[in-house]
Amino acid sequence: MGAPSPGYSLTIRVEAPATITATSELAAAVGAAGGSVTALDVVESGHETVIVDVSCNTTNTDHAEQIRGALDDLDGVSVRKVSDRTYLMHLGGKLEINPKVALRNRDDLSRAYTPGVARVCQTIAANKDDARRLTVKRNTIAVVSDGSAVLGLGNIGPEASLPVMEGKAALFKQFADVDAWPVCLDTQDTEEIIRVVKAIAPVYGGVNLEDIAAPRCFEIERRLREELDIPVFHDDQHGTAIVTLAALVNALKVVGKTIDQVRIVVSGVGAAGHAIIGLLAASGARNIIACGRSGAIVKGEEYSDAHRVWIAENTNPEGFSGTLQEAVVGADVFIGVSGPDLLQEEHIASMAEQAIVFAMANPDPEVDPVAAGRHAAVVATGRSDFPNQINNVLAFPGVFRGLLDAQTAEITDEMLVAAAEAIASRVSDAELNPGFIIPSVFDPKIASDVAAAIVAVAPAQTPAAAPVS
Amino acid sequence: MGAPSPGYSLTIRVEAPATITATSELAAAVGAAGGSVTALDVVESGHETVIVDVSCNTTNTDHAEQIRGALDDLDGVSVRKVSDRTYLMHLGGKLEINPKVALRNRDDLSRAYTPGVARVCQTIAANKDDARRLTVKRNTIAVVSDGSAVLGLGNIGPEASLPVMEGKAALFKQFADVDAWPVCLDTQDTEEIIRVVKAIAPVYGGVNLEDIAAPRCFEIERRLREELDIPVFHDDQHGTAIVTLAALVNALKVVGKTIDQVRIVVSGVGAAGHAIIGLLAASGARNIIACGRSGAIVKGEEYSDAHRVWIAENTNPEGFSGTLQEAVVGADVFIGVSGPDLLQEEHIASMAEQAIVFAMANPDPEVDPVAAGRHAAVVATGRSDFPNQINNVLAFPGVFRGLLDAQTAEITDEMLVAAAEAIASRVSDAELNPGFIIPSVFDPKIASDVAAAIVAVAPAQTPAAAPVS
Repeated sequence: MGAPSPGYSLTIRVEAPATITATSELAAAVGAAGGSVTALDVVESGHETVIVDVSCNTTNTDHAEQIRGALDDLDGVSVRKVSDRTYLMHLGGKLEINPKVALRNRDDLSRAYTPGVARVCQTIAANKDDARRLTVKRNTIAVVSDGSAVLGLGNIGPEASLPVMEGKAALFKQFADVDAWPVCLDTQDTEEIIRVVKAIAPVYGGVNLEDIAAPRCFEIERRLREELDIPVFHDDQHGTAIVTLAALVNALKVVGKTIDQVRIVVSGVGAAGHAIIGLLAASGARNIIACGRSGAIVKGEEYSDAHRVWIAENTNPEGFSGTLQEAVVGADVFIGVSGPDLLQEEHIASMAEQAIVFAMANPDPEVDPVAAGRHAAVVATGRSDFPNQINNVLAFPGVFRGLLDAQTAEITDEMLVAAAEAIASRVSDAELNPGFIIPSVFDPKIASDVAAAIVAVAPAQTPAAAPVS
Repeated sequence: MGAPSPGYSLTIRVEAPATITATSELAAAVGAAGGSVTALDVVESGHETVIVDVSCNTTNTDHAEQIRGALDDLDGVSVRKVSDRTYLMHLGGKLEINPKVALRNRDDLSRAYTPGVARVCQTIAANKDDARRLTVKRNTIAVVSDGSAVLGLGNIGPEASLPVMEGKAALFKQFADVDAWPVCLDTQDTEEIIRVVKAIAPVYGGVNLEDIAAPRCFEIERRLREELDIPVFHDDQHGTAIVTLAALVNALKVVGKTIDQVRIVVSGVGAAGHAIIGLLAASGARNIIACGRSGAIVKGEEYSDAHRVWIAENTNPEGFSGTLQEAVVGADVFIGVSGPDLLQEEHIASMAEQAIVFAMANPDPEVDPVAAGRHAAVVATGRSDFPNQINNVLAFPGVFRGLLDAQTAEITDEMLVAAAEAIASRVSDAELNPGFIIPSVFDPKIASDVAAAIVAVAPAQTPAAAPVS
């Protein structure tokens, strides 16, 4: 952990002596300081000096500063400018809103805008459902956050959450041609969030809730599902659950076990943990033990929130009571959506033969995946720099593509399971092995397969309005 | 009035006998029925029959049906399908949301999304103003409506207003590269609208209020201007006022009068009328008489709303009391933002020599512009099928381009006047004549000139944050 990453990549412009070894010395200096050179571009060359753009990946801000210093310290070399390639990518935002229709002349204007648009408005005024046909509502969802639980950064507020929501919207478009718009709310009051989302809903065909803190997120999702006629999906819950189930389906194939026979320990009972437990149960898992900060959740104990009460009622059939470390002894599957370094190598060693470990806390997993790999048969994480990355990008674009195509108002467990199976099926029997239980996020067929799976199990809708005549 | 318009254009697919005169007979039949043929495309040709797509402009829905019937009645001709080209243009909505950054591979993802995005979030969390630099906030505005006063259609609700707001957003992008997103609200409660717009504001660099009924629109604008740190502009008020002033500046040049000397009668004291009166006063007009449904507004009378009270205090210096028809006697300028057919030819004849008439009610003006032209020196309307169209498209794209470029939080009368003068200046002295007092909406320099004029008079802002290093 702590390898140089393209998320921290710089381009450092330096002036160096025009010697034959200049560029190789620059590269060597970056390497010696622990950076990873990705490009060397000579942008100007003279008799005495050259100007070189050195692009390199670094580990973090301090490391970037060290590398800058290492270059500046070279004989005759001076750093002119350091550009952070990540910031450059975000400058001015990552989305734009484009007309799909040309507005070149008066005729275009007469049809797209006044006076022609008035007839389209009247059609929708007469039948509100026509908005799904004649407006952006057909293909557009809201990515809604209050900025209260963003990535691992916590409660950073709506403005600071916007780069994440823009990125999410970009992924929706890129992977599934879903138009998605960030709605970052300057309120963290549950009732106010519900009111605002209901008020803005006419424009959207779906709502993706994102990075809203638990337990507020549960109530917001439940109420919006009840009160809106468009599907509402909390990605931190259901997106994570879908991809986790997909990975588990394939991991179980690798180790030759079935979901109804294994003992599964889930660490973390927040938004993700709760949804994972629900989806595993809906998929036939019979023996799940959920652990929060104070150990296993067990029937008979008193819990203050409705979600822990539900977990207590619906998991842990043997009434196990104890710590997470005790719970994993003899377990077949560990699923972590909690915090860093909760388990050591010996705890993984104490699990059943052919154990499966999904340590998904980000950026630092519940257990060192390399150490876990010495004992478990299959190890997955949330990180891109280990095999088997469990990444929501595999699910959410295709899920909303399917929901919009099906024009459904509700999201059922059956849809979530179908989505998970579609993802799992993208890994063929020939490809399946302990280091490849989950397809690449760049697999070009993922989103369409997930969408088709959702549409196939979606309830039949009212027939579309009569075609334009 | 009632000429065939591209806003009602059809493509009628017919099967006709394969004779040498077939297409000309089709065209003749459309013409005889009062339609205007824009294209004839033979899509299939056989020995016996041809399939022809007849595109034509019609007047309205009934007229379209007559033309369809006229074709169907021709010997051997049968209509297969009628496509309404306006509806086709709106199918699936008129906007899409596109990533500005490529997401082709893992490195792209690492910078645009996790883990790289976390640093960008942290920068904004430390300094909220950086959202104007690192997110869509820099170039994006909300087009907000509650659907209560849409075009001339009235209170048709948020879904039905969406085609108009999408069209507006498309115009913002097309004419001024402003990203604009429709926010159509499922509430018509003043306080609720204010709350919702404040809650969604973090994503936007400005708010364009649109088609919200008076007097609610005044309170919403006033409060949002007070409570938000981004500019709030009600296009129905200020956009209309800017373009009206621009037209008046040039019309006064044509007739050789000055704004401080003329008597101006404004018909209509809703959102547009109130803003026009305010802006004319700010530009030096000293003698304005405002007429509502019950005649001239005059100091000393009691008015129930604050806007009429303001008008009574600030206009009509001679204390004229009477009807609209009486008010225009001897007036130099008539500006109508009210309803159809309030004045007849004789009322225009009663105005001063070299009178100016802006009859902007849509689709039917306050007075027949042809009749008005027999007496007034300059006539303008809101319609595209007469000379001198007073169209807000001339103002709003450039206004928001300027507001975003200046990163200003407030909108001053000085800015509105500067925008009007920039529009007026696009008509050169050589071009200026009674039939060309206002530039074309397709003049490619309008928006940039308006934006530059706004930036030039915008208050100095706090310096931008330090550049990315």
